[in-house]
Amino acid sequence: MLFLTLRDDPADAEIPSHKLLLRAGYIRRIGSGVYAYLPLMWRVLQKVSQIVREEMNAAGAQECLLPQLQPADLWKESGRWDTYTKAEGIMFALKDRRDQEQALGPTHEEVITTIARDMIRSYRQLPQLLYQIQTKFRDEIRPRFGLMRGREFIMKDAYSFNVDEESLEKTYQDMHIAYSNILRRSGLAFRDVQADSGAIGGSASQEFMVLAEAGEDEVLYTKDGQYAANVEKAVSLPPDAQPSAFTNYEKRETPGTETIEKVCEFLKCSSTQLVKNVLYETIFDNGTSVLVLVSIRGDQEVNDVKLQNELTKLAPKYDAKTVIKLAVPDTEAQAKWASKPLPLGYIAPDVADDYIKSVKNIAPGFLRLVDKTATDLKNFVTGANESGYHVVGANWGEQVKLPEFAVDVRKARPGDRAKHNPEQTLESARGIEVGHIFQLGTKYSIAMGATFTNEQGEEKPLLMGCYGVGVSRLAQAAVEQSYDKDGIIWPVAIAPYHAIITIPNINDAQQMEIAEKLYAQLNQAGVETLLDDRNERAGVKFKDADLIGIPYRIVTGRAIANGKVEVVERKSRKSHEIAIADVVSTLNQWIQSVNSEQRSQ
Amino acid sequence: MLFLTLRDDPADAEIPSHKLLLRAGYIRRIGSGVYAYLPLMWRVLQKVSQIVREEMNAAGAQECLLPQLQPADLWKESGRWDTYTKAEGIMFALKDRRDQEQALGPTHEEVITTIARDMIRSYRQLPQLLYQIQTKFRDEIRPRFGLMRGREFIMKDAYSFNVDEESLEKTYQDMHIAYSNILRRSGLAFRDVQADSGAIGGSASQEFMVLAEAGEDEVLYTKDGQYAANVEKAVSLPPDAQPSAFTNYEKRETPGTETIEKVCEFLKCSSTQLVKNVLYETIFDNGTSVLVLVSIRGDQEVNDVKLQNELTKLAPKYDAKTVIKLAVPDTEAQAKWASKPLPLGYIAPDVADDYIKSVKNIAPGFLRLVDKTATDLKNFVTGANESGYHVVGANWGEQVKLPEFAVDVRKARPGDRAKHNPEQTLESARGIEVGHIFQLGTKYSIAMGATFTNEQGEEKPLLMGCYGVGVSRLAQAAVEQSYDKDGIIWPVAIAPYHAIITIPNINDAQQMEIAEKLYAQLNQAGVETLLDDRNERAGVKFKDADLIGIPYRIVTGRAIANGKVEVVERKSRKSHEIAIADVVSTLNQWIQSVNSEQRSQ
Repeated sequence: MLFLTLRDDPADAEIPSHKLLLRAGYIRRIGSGVYAYLPLMWRVLQKVSQIVREEMNAAGAQECLLPQLQPADLWKESGRWDTYTKAEGIMFALKDRRDQEQALGPTHEEVITTIARDMIRSYRQLPQLLYQIQTKFRDEIRPRFGLMRGREFIMKDAYSFNVDEESLEKTYQDMHIAYSNILRRSGLAFRDVQADSGAIGGSASQEFMVLAEAGEDEVLYTKDGQYAANVEKAVSLPPDAQPSAFTNYEKRETPGTETIEKVCEFLKCSSTQLVKNVLYETIFDNGTSVLVLVSIRGDQEVNDVKLQNELTKLAPKYDAKTVIKLAVPDTEAQAKWASKPLPLGYIAPDVADDYIKSVKNIAPGFLRLVDKTATDLKNFVTGANESGYHVVGANWGEQVKLPEFAVDVRKARPGDRAKHNPEQTLESARGIEVGHIFQLGTKYSIAMGATFTNEQGEEKPLLMGCYGVGVSRLAQAAVEQSYDKDGIIWPVAIAPYHAIITIPNINDAQQMEIAEKLYAQLNQAGVETLLDDRNERAGVKFKDADLIGIPYRIVTGRAIANGKVEVVERKSRKSHEIAIADVVSTLNQWIQSVNSEQRSQ
Repeated sequence: MLFLTLRDDPADAEIPSHKLLLRAGYIRRIGSGVYAYLPLMWRVLQKVSQIVREEMNAAGAQECLLPQLQPADLWKESGRWDTYTKAEGIMFALKDRRDQEQALGPTHEEVITTIARDMIRSYRQLPQLLYQIQTKFRDEIRPRFGLMRGREFIMKDAYSFNVDEESLEKTYQDMHIAYSNILRRSGLAFRDVQADSGAIGGSASQEFMVLAEAGEDEVLYTKDGQYAANVEKAVSLPPDAQPSAFTNYEKRETPGTETIEKVCEFLKCSSTQLVKNVLYETIFDNGTSVLVLVSIRGDQEVNDVKLQNELTKLAPKYDAKTVIKLAVPDTEAQAKWASKPLPLGYIAPDVADDYIKSVKNIAPGFLRLVDKTATDLKNFVTGANESGYHVVGANWGEQVKLPEFAVDVRKARPGDRAKHNPEQTLESARGIEVGHIFQLGTKYSIAMGATFTNEQGEEKPLLMGCYGVGVSRLAQAAVEQSYDKDGIIWPVAIAPYHAIITIPNINDAQQMEIAEKLYAQLNQAGVETLLDDRNERAGVKFKDADLIGIPYRIVTGRAIANGKVEVVERKSRKSHEIAIADVVSTLNQWIQSVNSEQRSQ
């Protein structure tokens, strides 16, 4: 076996799982965000894939394999070519010898939709659910954390085609069950959370988060188990605002109060009595951009993803790809918009009326949005649209004109009351997203003309769903969730081997004989076993066994004098002396009991 | 199941297997040389992969997965970047968002060698044999024949690292056995042949050819089974030359005799008495090119691959990437070389001495090669280096100066006598190359500095071998070898399903009940079975079953009145009436007997 462990942490690895997989010889870096899966890792990936396969097949899904090279034309048909190659730029593209543009598939909605368009003709062929387990490519801005955010990674992606919403909902729920089974069977602690749909599009969407401190995602949830959402998507009730002491509407000089804290301190009021006005520039996927003013209660923050989604709704032909908050005093960024920049820190919610006149004659111009937390306020404090001045005791209407678009773009926060039950407060956890299921609806089928004839003989666009599991990411997430100072602690179901036989002294003929016999018997009986018969000190071999994280270590040491071997559980460190004749049956029983426990959870 | 068969042959498919896979719904074209593997095809590919995996594991190989994205630097280290991206241009390359060049792996010598360099330190870790089953990319000049010559295809590639030639030879032989087993178990008629090593480099190399009329390769073999080689590599004894009637050396006027036939007719001599002189331009991978004159007996042809190899040997720093035969009267191509072009059709073997003076002052100039068939001749006829003139009765020496490089570049032909036994003559067959094994030696380990410490404590370059199976090509080759007018006839071992149950009339409750029961029982017992319960006429369903080529068709038709079903063997068309209670055991027995027959062949 190609086996080499490293004593020291590799310099470029940041999180524990990345360090451990490198040190224990599971992976090797070949390029930025690109790794070789060595034999031990490949076994883990195969085990994860097999669990995925079994659960997908059980849900009636059919396995296939779609091309990684995708003609650009397909992406132009769906309207995503520019978004993926330019605006976000996360898709690798290349030109072939005939100068034809090709994409390296980060996802396969376009390819599967063109197949559906070709092959699905009638409702009698529906529903269809297809999946593949495949290497995907993303030209990440910042590849990091090993397999967590790589440029080349293994995904299971599935796509469903349904006649109507009800059928789609059914498939979506089937996938929800399958995904829960996959994670449970893999031995992972996880949470399924409501999620934003992002660039994939569509309506309902849920993420499956493996809980781990190093997770890139924040999850908000309630302890009653009734609510969990990605922070990007989470909703909550804001804390109550304090009643305002300002009953008269007047303009006040408030020098040097560009921040909420400073205004509150100066005016001796609560930030819940303020309407703050935040200026954004948003860039749409067709290249045009718009200035956006968002008014929100002073103690609350804008959720950029929600804002992006609201802006996309307002300009339904285009997607808002980025929102950039313009910071104080970002006069330069504003200069391209208007000759006289807005007084950041002192902007009024209804600024635009006079400001718009000074806006240069460029495309769509200026949008005013107000969050619900702000519309609910009375006698509030807000900017006077003049540097160094605020108004107090203001009310929406004549005093301050209400912005034209009322939206909910507030960021939910830990400690907020839950919407489903105000007695519950939101808690925060870190998670690693390993699965994501989407109801896409007709976004791709309409764009690409994938239709079917329904029972009434009418031609209808197919309803679609898509469902992804990050296979390589899941494998690393398992390590991130389960390790100790000595190394990896694999869940039994996805460990590369169930057991490792460590021979303390290979010059002892009896040790060798017992070890080799057990090795053959265990593998024969389906207990996947490694044999460490290297000419190394026992201590080195014990350390390596701990580092690579095999669930059960069998030591053919002193106990063999009594016809026994020592079996150590990696996770609990519990040591058992087991009669040599019972080792196979005992291990088989342990493994089966762990696996069936996870299945039935 | 996503299932759709087509009545008509697709327009763009040229060979039977390509047409059948498209018509039967196994594959769909997504782009030039790029196909989606639909669920039926994916099952075939999985079966082939599983056989490959079992045989590789049995040979002690370890599975891994290497990246498809490969940094250009690795290819520059091995010296193949220019060859693969420019001279041959068969590698897709792209630039990432940081403007770094990346290759899309057509093969993995560079990646595996960099891993070996990193992880293999001592002879105690050797030998190592690693493999992967993976999608590869080649920007083919002319993608065609479906999966036969695609731009994206599935390969099993393996790489070995050995301490010495003897160990490498052992691994090479192990792989030879494994490959023979793979093809036998897949149910294919094949031949292993000696092969040229091509751009991969190295010494010994053998190809595994699936025999089929549409094969792109020609194989020459003897009926005694002692010899088989790819035509590019094949050797043989040329037919004996006829003794020359020209005993006096003289120059003759031979107007209008640019071709061998015309000279022979004009001079009333045999083509075996002639030395013909063929002019080539060869381009090396560093961009320089050379004019090459090859003298060979008049009835023989030059083998371009052998010529290329000889030229590479003569210029060991560079590879001769192309040889272009300059045709009569290609004065234009010659014009870039010399002010006065050579008289094609009348060139003399020793032309260069005066010609070289007129060659323009450009790089390496001119090479003269002579094949053994020519050096053996006496009193021969050859060109006089003057348009319209030949010499007769010539001999090497003072009359005609022998070219400086004697080589064997003759093309072996069917009908030639075999070298190992002149009683045997070479026969010709067409084949599809599905496997190729190479002894690479130290080409990559020296270029990339992959060394180990041997038992004597010396640092040595690793000896390498590489071993490839075209998994997707093998699957299509099976169809090319086994079909009839009605469709595909899959070998049992790699058929997507073993059996298909066709219900002639789905409105007959008894037929449905028996079919569904059998379907469940068969699958339970490991007989992979499809159920065709579509609302179609029986004839349509029978046709589809034949087209997709499932080995056994079970029909729940009239015979059920007697407690029986009809079972039809796809290959032989034999029909059996089998008691319903015996169907599972009978099919299981048939399948096992076919599979074990193939294993033990």
